[in-house]
Amino acid sequence: MSKKAIGIFDSGLGGLTILKALRRTLPHENLIYFGDSANVPYGSKSKQTVTRFSIDIARFLESQGVKMIVVACNTASALALPTLRKQCHVPVIGVIEPGAKKAAASTKNGRIAVLGTEGTVKSNAYATAILKYTPHARIKQQSCPLFVPLVEENWTKKPAALLIAQDYLSSVRRHRADTVILGCTHYPVLKKVIAHVLGPKVTLIDSAQTVAQAVQTFLRENNIQETVGKGKLTVYASDDPARFKRLATHLLADKIATVYLKKLNA
Amino acid sequence: MSKKAIGIFDSGLGGLTILKALRRTLPHENLIYFGDSANVPYGSKSKQTVTRFSIDIARFLESQGVKMIVVACNTASALALPTLRKQCHVPVIGVIEPGAKKAAASTKNGRIAVLGTEGTVKSNAYATAILKYTPHARIKQQSCPLFVPLVEENWTKKPAALLIAQDYLSSVRRHRADTVILGCTHYPVLKKVIAHVLGPKVTLIDSAQTVAQAVQTFLRENNIQETVGKGKLTVYASDDPARFKRLATHLLADKIATVYLKKLNA
Repeated sequence: MSKKAIGIFDSGLGGLTILKALRRTLPHENLIYFGDSANVPYGSKSKQTVTRFSIDIARFLESQGVKMIVVACNTASALALPTLRKQCHVPVIGVIEPGAKKAAASTKNGRIAVLGTEGTVKSNAYATAILKYTPHARIKQQSCPLFVPLVEENWTKKPAALLIAQDYLSSVRRHRADTVILGCTHYPVLKKVIAHVLGPKVTLIDSAQTVAQAVQTFLRENNIQETVGKGKLTVYASDDPARFKRLATHLLADKIATVYLKKLNA
Repeated sequence: MSKKAIGIFDSGLGGLTILKALRRTLPHENLIYFGDSANVPYGSKSKQTVTRFSIDIARFLESQGVKMIVVACNTASALALPTLRKQCHVPVIGVIEPGAKKAAASTKNGRIAVLGTEGTVKSNAYATAILKYTPHARIKQQSCPLFVPLVEENWTKKPAALLIAQDYLSSVRRHRADTVILGCTHYPVLKKVIAHVLGPKVTLIDSAQTVAQAVQTFLRENNIQETVGKGKLTVYASDDPARFKRLATHLLADKIATVYLKKLNA
């Protein structure tokens, strides 16, 4: 058992979908969430820059005494995970591996599509991970850069969201994928729209629950799972905590007491 | 006369619309453009954060020996101009004042609309500037946060762009504005779509040309205008110079020899 918190970070709000699953699966754990609202989005930025942002955040989380770090951002998982693991003193779990594993287990026709940011798609991290589990899979990767601003601006229910989804997903439909990975923590917020465009026969892989289970397994195996008491949630944002709190409360459908400002590199 | 360069900066690509006008108006001037692609966008970020980014860039431009700085970003002009002027050793010109002046001169029915980022709208910088010139103007401000990603992702000709413009501009139509300020350097790239939605009777104020004229006047009055030779353009980006060059060449419709990487705060 360990009362130490689990650190979770994302470029902005998207990682809250993972946070929600962690709170449900691990209600006794203290959680520290960091949203990098000063540098959001990560998706179109380079490996070098995303790694620099990620390392800064991980250092801050370590200074808060976390027992492990969950990279609740696909772009950061795809681009920065090896460096993070090298430079951190606590274990680091990303979101790519659990999602790839789940997709490989789900597909029947061997055709999988990955929706992600430009950075995630370019890295081939999902494709590489999927092929470890199903070497004969046929994989189509599609970057959907406008999905993140649609979510960050709370525009997911507007007709434009549907039109944008139809555009991005036409390649996925042509690929005849039966399994589609929502390879960005923002995308589950657009799940209804994506499901509407792809139809009921396609399985959407939202890695939030899978990641939460992977974290639980890790804590158990290392005997550091907290099993009593109500876990505390502490939230930091690198810019405009009031705005972050307003949008986060809406997304989490749950109250956040306070969002603290923590500037990086300043 | 002064062979020293003029420094121009923006959060990303939008300021290239100003750069284009400057090159046309002042063909003999050496220009240094800085696009903050590591931190783009600025529009939804706080005054404090945008000011921090702007100061870092201004310091770099000063280190390159510029004779003046043009803040080719409305959000940075609206939020950071006073601090920049205090902390810089060279004159700093923003984009708000020239745009407001032009709009005040253009309106016939006294109804002006300002399209801008969340930060620009919240600052009231345009409204304050317009009221200095036409104290009885009726001003409607509308933030259009999805316009910047549409431009940065080169989606301006897609049907979604029209749908998003129709949504944002409905308030402007209701206001019966005869003059609309494109209060973000990205928005002129969407000019056709915006004009289509608002109709031919509405005058769109694109401050690029006005800013270029203001810079020219300033150089002349201070006798530091360069009048011979072909001006040189040097471009820096804080992240992924290859990507920046590709998108910038498309936007500028002009060749850029090289985009250099210049990381801030690293």
